[in-house]
Amino acid sequence: MALTPKTIPVADLEQLCCAVLRKAGLSDADARTTTDVLVTTDTYGVYTHGVKCLSGYVKRLLAGGLKPNATPTIDREGAGWALVDGHSAIAMVTSVFAMNTAIEKAKKTGVGYVGVHNSCHFGAAGYYVNLAAKAGLVGLAMANDIPSMVTPGARKPVLGTNPFSYAVPAGEENPIFLDIASSGASIGRIRIAKARGETVPDSWLVDNDGLPTGNASAYPHGASPASFAGHKGYGIALMIEVLAGVLADGGSRWDISSWNEGDPKLPTHHGAAFMAIDIEQIVPLQRFKGRMDQMIRDIRNTPEAKNVDRVRLPGEMEWDRRREALADGIPLPDDVRASVQDAAAAVGLTADCLLK
Amino acid sequence: MALTPKTIPVADLEQLCCAVLRKAGLSDADARTTTDVLVTTDTYGVYTHGVKCLSGYVKRLLAGGLKPNATPTIDREGAGWALVDGHSAIAMVTSVFAMNTAIEKAKKTGVGYVGVHNSCHFGAAGYYVNLAAKAGLVGLAMANDIPSMVTPGARKPVLGTNPFSYAVPAGEENPIFLDIASSGASIGRIRIAKARGETVPDSWLVDNDGLPTGNASAYPHGASPASFAGHKGYGIALMIEVLAGVLADGGSRWDISSWNEGDPKLPTHHGAAFMAIDIEQIVPLQRFKGRMDQMIRDIRNTPEAKNVDRVRLPGEMEWDRRREALADGIPLPDDVRASVQDAAAAVGLTADCLLK
Repeated sequence: MALTPKTIPVADLEQLCCAVLRKAGLSDADARTTTDVLVTTDTYGVYTHGVKCLSGYVKRLLAGGLKPNATPTIDREGAGWALVDGHSAIAMVTSVFAMNTAIEKAKKTGVGYVGVHNSCHFGAAGYYVNLAAKAGLVGLAMANDIPSMVTPGARKPVLGTNPFSYAVPAGEENPIFLDIASSGASIGRIRIAKARGETVPDSWLVDNDGLPTGNASAYPHGASPASFAGHKGYGIALMIEVLAGVLADGGSRWDISSWNEGDPKLPTHHGAAFMAIDIEQIVPLQRFKGRMDQMIRDIRNTPEAKNVDRVRLPGEMEWDRRREALADGIPLPDDVRASVQDAAAAVGLTADCLLK
Repeated sequence: MALTPKTIPVADLEQLCCAVLRKAGLSDADARTTTDVLVTTDTYGVYTHGVKCLSGYVKRLLAGGLKPNATPTIDREGAGWALVDGHSAIAMVTSVFAMNTAIEKAKKTGVGYVGVHNSCHFGAAGYYVNLAAKAGLVGLAMANDIPSMVTPGARKPVLGTNPFSYAVPAGEENPIFLDIASSGASIGRIRIAKARGETVPDSWLVDNDGLPTGNASAYPHGASPASFAGHKGYGIALMIEVLAGVLADGGSRWDISSWNEGDPKLPTHHGAAFMAIDIEQIVPLQRFKGRMDQMIRDIRNTPEAKNVDRVRLPGEMEWDRRREALADGIPLPDDVRASVQDAAAAVGLTADCLLK
């Protein structure tokens, strides 16, 4: 990736993000945890889910919909599972706690499931699954959201664009990781096409009759995101709604309100689910890692398609971007900078490092 | 669904299937288990994965690639997990054993994972997940296969069309269940389009340059199935390869041979993974079931798209077909009848009920 002239050192962005969150009322520890989730996501190049979201979280922290001093707790638990109540704490803190709990459970029984209720928008699922992979476990993470996605046969939103993510550790190679929405395209990509006046593949959107459309300019009032691959994305989103909502004993579908457009004084009732599988209980970890490395290399050596430079593994692009960001800074897009400046201004700080 | 004149009573098909399997060397119990998997799949209308496959299994049972007298065993286990060695038993027997083991594990710890090695083509994943749903648990099932699917950026097959399936019990409503391949379309649908001389959506196939093509007539030598939704299906298929192959300590990718085209004297080294989550340990089962019923009804009442009669839940079409099949018989397609007759002939039986 060519570097833009406006890259920001990772440490500077972390310092700013942390300062804003502390000013918004978070403890040092919670501000650090949240910052690591958001800035790591930006190092992956997933700018829609990193510090860009800070202004929305700060708005809620100041208004009371998110409680700066809340601490997630375990409601109920068993040998291999737990239910976590987020008590409207910022969702990064709750989600890290929940994934760590899933890892602890898995360390005991082999597999752990943790359902979360009373949470909020948790940013990028990919951060949490990599906590598991770093600890040598398979990690899965998913979350529900207010319905915004139309599924096959319907003409109104049925489910959220519920994200699904997993990571698997390798040996010398980076972990494999995937972080996908249940919709054909992210709302961010649809918005970009709309801003540019471009059409999109007609698998991305359905119009108000429930029919496919490539007209991005109709979003959001005349068109809604469609589930990926029709009934496949519908089915996956519904599984997530069960694991992150109904089984997590929390909000589901219309119980949830929009984290960025809903009343910031009220909780949003998002749910989430985290799972971990402890590899070394099941197979010798060195054998597992060796086989993962071999599979990764074999796939990478598959003959590439015409006009493609090389075959990539899920997560490889994110690892490449992260390596570059750590070395040379994050090429943060202008809209993200503007949003972080809003967040800083809301707590009476100036975002100096963004203005250099 | 309009009934064809050639429906077959479920009991007749079961009796025939069982008789063929016993003649091929299976015990009564194993023949019954296998028959239930295959005929239930046909009652769902999933004719590509029901008794149509019998002739392929019989060929392997007679040639030795499947061992008629083998019994799956637990290789290693922990509180919430087990690895099952199929010992080249017919995969329906191994898979039912493995899912039941996952259910037992989940009953103890909350969540169970069972990886399977030394198995074969296991038919339709949807059967196994419904064993869990019937017992009041969430069930997941997946399996790997010889690479036949091209993933984004590649021009050669990278992974199998690895199936993913789950089921969730409800109260008065039928369980939700999904059973999907990692490819955009099943090989069965591609073959039908080819036979009819039709083109297909260009998300279904890629040509030998790795570029999308709608030319079904090029399959299989000039075109291969593509992963669904590009990198999403790729990522899901790779997760399955890990859970059903590498973590199951068994065959993966090119270790596996084709169950219907490979040498029937040799084992195929397919793997599989089964997971179960015991709902009632986590939330009161009646509350869970009530919420599932409510969600199912709310989704069903979503305004339908233009030209659609009603909004369906995942699995609803299969439950409708099963109810009709149990009442009126299975409208088994001609190619399936022919295949069952081949299987019967291979063990010296005639398929009288198919000829009525």
